[in-house]
Amino acid sequence: MSAAVTLRPQDFRAELLARGLLIPTGVDGLYGRSETFEGLVAAVDALIGRLAAGDGAEIMRFPPVMTRQGFEASGYFRNFPQLSATIHCFCGDDREHRRVLSCTAEEGGWTAAQAPTDIVMTPASCYPVYPVVAARGRLPEDGWLVDSSSYCFRREPSVDPARMQMFRQREQVCFGSPEGIRAFQARWMQRAMDMFASLGLPAATDLANDPFFGRPGELMATGQRSQRLKFEILVPVSDPGRPSACGSFNYHVQHFAQAYGIQDAAGEVAHTGCAGFGLERIALALLRHHGFVPADWSAALRRVLWP
Amino acid sequence: MSAAVTLRPQDFRAELLARGLLIPTGVDGLYGRSETFEGLVAAVDALIGRLAAGDGAEIMRFPPVMTRQGFEASGYFRNFPQLSATIHCFCGDDREHRRVLSCTAEEGGWTAAQAPTDIVMTPASCYPVYPVVAARGRLPEDGWLVDSSSYCFRREPSVDPARMQMFRQREQVCFGSPEGIRAFQARWMQRAMDMFASLGLPAATDLANDPFFGRPGELMATGQRSQRLKFEILVPVSDPGRPSACGSFNYHVQHFAQAYGIQDAAGEVAHTGCAGFGLERIALALLRHHGFVPADWSAALRRVLWP
Repeated sequence: MSAAVTLRPQDFRAELLARGLLIPTGVDGLYGRSETFEGLVAAVDALIGRLAAGDGAEIMRFPPVMTRQGFEASGYFRNFPQLSATIHCFCGDDREHRRVLSCTAEEGGWTAAQAPTDIVMTPASCYPVYPVVAARGRLPEDGWLVDSSSYCFRREPSVDPARMQMFRQREQVCFGSPEGIRAFQARWMQRAMDMFASLGLPAATDLANDPFFGRPGELMATGQRSQRLKFEILVPVSDPGRPSACGSFNYHVQHFAQAYGIQDAAGEVAHTGCAGFGLERIALALLRHHGFVPADWSAALRRVLWP
Repeated sequence: MSAAVTLRPQDFRAELLARGLLIPTGVDGLYGRSETFEGLVAAVDALIGRLAAGDGAEIMRFPPVMTRQGFEASGYFRNFPQLSATIHCFCGDDREHRRVLSCTAEEGGWTAAQAPTDIVMTPASCYPVYPVVAARGRLPEDGWLVDSSSYCFRREPSVDPARMQMFRQREQVCFGSPEGIRAFQARWMQRAMDMFASLGLPAATDLANDPFFGRPGELMATGQRSQRLKFEILVPVSDPGRPSACGSFNYHVQHFAQAYGIQDAAGEVAHTGCAGFGLERIALALLRHHGFVPADWSAALRRVLWP
């Protein structure tokens, strides 16, 4: 076991920055990445790709921005306003430009005339997938499987490097019947546990809930737990005493299918689920548990990541 | 020469969508990417990496969001307000949340309380690099070289697939003396011309200017041209009659170094330049000129992309 695993949380972050693995920007939770860190993320991404290889999922990749229409349909702002982010632009002319450039801070500064656009930041890599699948019409008899990946945004500035505002998710998204989704969820939890074991990372599954906002959110969270819809795989990353979710395995029942009008082959509202991994978190967990120099890791571990 | 090269601009786009290479989202200039398209972008990216390999550049990767402070220092909103995008969030409580959820469209709808944050969309992949280099203190004697890459955002919705709102740039960023930057600029233009030739793409260099906003912008553009600061490499992509810039080679004089306080080894304000490629545009140019099925391309071309 490396010395990195015994570091205090704040020293883990300091070490990542001192070694240049993450590059600070001055905003909490927003970092540049070094060649070594990026290489590690790419290796984790490829490893997940090998786990998924036999499934025949359709690969879709998205930029980290989605349509406002799709975002609104999902109900995300209703449930998670605190994590949401909208993209605003300037639509004025020369004169309006001169006006905002001379606005005082109290008048709103240069952003005084920024207006909401038709796009928002993507909160999870599966979100852009639903409208695309919905637009194709009824699902095939056996349902459908998509392998999606993108940078995602969540407005939760934190000094914890495991809680970034912009991070990458690799998600498998399953469309089908309740039994199909439950089987998909169980299969990916097992694959993930095997993967973490092969990476020498201590991992535990846990029943979980999404961070629904406010008082009404408490009810939603309780409902999600009592129906056993969301599981996470927790791995100690920054704080050994408070492990971080590195994988998330969700059965949405008919939430997304209803929101986007996704029908099964018989024309009934479909069921969906997703199995997602936080790529930066897994890379950080590896650095935490095996030390800051991947070149020095055991040959066995390196073979798992770079076969 | 493939049939794809003779298609009308609108038919080129239709064909990309029909074949699923690009996935429409309902917003102009915002697309998902298929496995084939992503594979092509990755191959182009790796090819540029091989061109850069001997230079010893420091690799930095960034998410497509940068600090508002760094953005403001660059003067981007002063020069290009029409392309800028800011990120806004909700900071209210339960009560405020209920209020905005019941706002009418005229009252601003659910975005009524969205407020500007300390982050904005990154307009070019070199922008996050300058503050990082500035924070390290004076440059080494020989200057510095960074290899940066990220998704970038420009607010210019268009049905032309070569004009996306979110696209990837791979840029080399050079810090040093005027002679050093001019040599860097010339070297990368030559490398780029050789690369386009090896890809079987017709390419031409051209003196260019940035799309500065409004009346004062005309003066800036004229100045940029008369000083021969910006060159582009143009390749026909969507419209054979109106080629698109697939590479951009810029000498910033002291603009960025002054804005961010970047000093050379002697403590003087440094000079900077960048050589950038639009990865999606090059992928689209390849599809346009060689046909929509990369597996069918000539063995020689495939060896260049997948050696």
